[in-house]
Amino acid sequence: MPDRFVLVLAGGRGERFWPWSQPERPKQLLPLAPGGRSLLAATLERALRLTGPDRVLVLTARDLVPAVRAECPPGVLVVGEPVGRNTAPAIGAAAAWALAQAADATLAVMPSDHLITRTDAFTADAERAFALAGAEPVLVTFGIRPTHAETNFGYLRHGARLEERVHRVARFTEKPDRATAARWIADGDHLWNSGIFVWGAATFLDALTASRPQLATPLRGLGGPRTAPALEAALERVFPALESISVDYAVLEHAPNVITIEASFDWDDLGSWSAWARTQPRDDQGNVAFGDALVMDCERCVVVGEGGPAAALGLRDMVVVHANGATLAVPLDRSEQVRQVSEAVRRRAVAAGPRS
Amino acid sequence: MPDRFVLVLAGGRGERFWPWSQPERPKQLLPLAPGGRSLLAATLERALRLTGPDRVLVLTARDLVPAVRAECPPGVLVVGEPVGRNTAPAIGAAAAWALAQAADATLAVMPSDHLITRTDAFTADAERAFALAGAEPVLVTFGIRPTHAETNFGYLRHGARLEERVHRVARFTEKPDRATAARWIADGDHLWNSGIFVWGAATFLDALTASRPQLATPLRGLGGPRTAPALEAALERVFPALESISVDYAVLEHAPNVITIEASFDWDDLGSWSAWARTQPRDDQGNVAFGDALVMDCERCVVVGEGGPAAALGLRDMVVVHANGATLAVPLDRSEQVRQVSEAVRRRAVAAGPRS
Repeated sequence: MPDRFVLVLAGGRGERFWPWSQPERPKQLLPLAPGGRSLLAATLERALRLTGPDRVLVLTARDLVPAVRAECPPGVLVVGEPVGRNTAPAIGAAAAWALAQAADATLAVMPSDHLITRTDAFTADAERAFALAGAEPVLVTFGIRPTHAETNFGYLRHGARLEERVHRVARFTEKPDRATAARWIADGDHLWNSGIFVWGAATFLDALTASRPQLATPLRGLGGPRTAPALEAALERVFPALESISVDYAVLEHAPNVITIEASFDWDDLGSWSAWARTQPRDDQGNVAFGDALVMDCERCVVVGEGGPAAALGLRDMVVVHANGATLAVPLDRSEQVRQVSEAVRRRAVAAGPRS
Repeated sequence: MPDRFVLVLAGGRGERFWPWSQPERPKQLLPLAPGGRSLLAATLERALRLTGPDRVLVLTARDLVPAVRAECPPGVLVVGEPVGRNTAPAIGAAAAWALAQAADATLAVMPSDHLITRTDAFTADAERAFALAGAEPVLVTFGIRPTHAETNFGYLRHGARLEERVHRVARFTEKPDRATAARWIADGDHLWNSGIFVWGAATFLDALTASRPQLATPLRGLGGPRTAPALEAALERVFPALESISVDYAVLEHAPNVITIEASFDWDDLGSWSAWARTQPRDDQGNVAFGDALVMDCERCVVVGEGGPAAALGLRDMVVVHANGATLAVPLDRSEQVRQVSEAVRRRAVAAGPRS
């Protein structure tokens, strides 16, 4: 059996849960998973069902390393990137690192800010993906059966069927418009791209060499340092000069050997407060009260208090958040626009200069 | 001309502006007056148009003395009551204190948590009240022409007309039901009781003796200490044993010699967030943004950020407040129920015990 490695991508700065999420405590570090665990901790649990801790590499931003490490079991390698370069360089670096340790290395890639609750189903699907990627030079993606005409995801179009729930990918497309997304859902041949991948380390680097040789060449030289400082030093030499690009654009849209497994596990990218609310227990009036929340005569509201009370009285279909010394109030059906709020708050803070 | 004294009542713990108002920083200390001044500071300005600072006595709760003193000009006597006993004992104490200094003392009584912006009109009305109270043994009240069927105020019913805008008070009634309030507004003979009074110190103590001798007797013995520690020591001896009762119930409902001046100044008791909002400048969409407030695509909202940002997106007719480490969100037309919220938060805090 080939040697298995896992890359956990933990460098995101998701702002959609502002003010709960902050640049120094982004979405993957929030207790959004069942049992009040962080999404990152839940991701690590899934990773460690597949391989040993010394084969799990967590890449994050340098300033997030201490907070990320606190969520990781002992033995896991937590490495800070000197600069963010999106997913293609990160995955290429992990592939080179794994390949330097084992010529037959297979690599699973897992975002750390998505919610998956059916861990057993995930493990079974991942086992199947490792088997496929170990047997043939294919790039295995996990496709999610769409539930609505989402315009913020990438889509995978089925090509030839290979076996049950496994197809070649005929086309890989980022973020369609709404009409296109609706058509794709109707045809039954399109799946959402979950951003979870499994492939041979060599297979991936070959694909990267074919489509982005200027990325592949420096990354191949990284080697397989076993300690975080050594790997950080290696990234420091290489990363700053690299193009910042996603693996979708750099590799998956071009490679001919992409296949997809239709996931048997549940998956949610938790892209908004309302998405998170759907995963939470509710009271008789449909409210989600989390932390220090006081909910009086409300219906279908999400009220979150962290570090102080959030009180809502007489509201319908609203999100009210008190966290990190700030307050947010927004209708539930506009919670996808929270990023605009956090950006505006940040711009104002910059304009105002340092607080006295 | 008789010697003029002013009592400013600054012991209230108004909770209607929670979380902006807190027990240690109640409504009269908030910057609710024009120019971002506290209501108390604005009250002191009115008081000092009528007499010298050494004739102004500010009564408050003992723990509020430092914060209250910070709002008062030098020379004003700020005194902490050992226990709160409502307005009748406080006014009786001030009357005894003034009488000990001048046998012909007249005393104006001013709540410190109301909003009055037309200071010149107030001064003119107060001059007239001092003249009336200096000439005859009458209890002068200020009546406000009602604008709506308020059920939280006391009402003064006109008796015989004495001169322009001055009537005897035929009846003094606390908090009618809504139907009664509506009838009273229609008849044109009822005014709101503003809680602002002017009377001879001896006249008031005589009225108190007639209706509540058990209050008047110990208060008459207080004397006229000129320093805060001496007056606090005197109150310490007398206050704990006194009945806690308002001047309305203890005196004004019983006294035959109550008259009223219909105010020519504006007056608002600022009983809720929505009442305060009516006094503030608005943007083109009717929003009030105060402090660190971010208002995006909102209409007719009140957004207040103190000590951190309050962000509102896509709201209509809402109050959103971030202050003192807490968050409030409530529809504008239910902002009168905020006291229930603050009480519930306090109960929870007590139940939870001290924070770690």
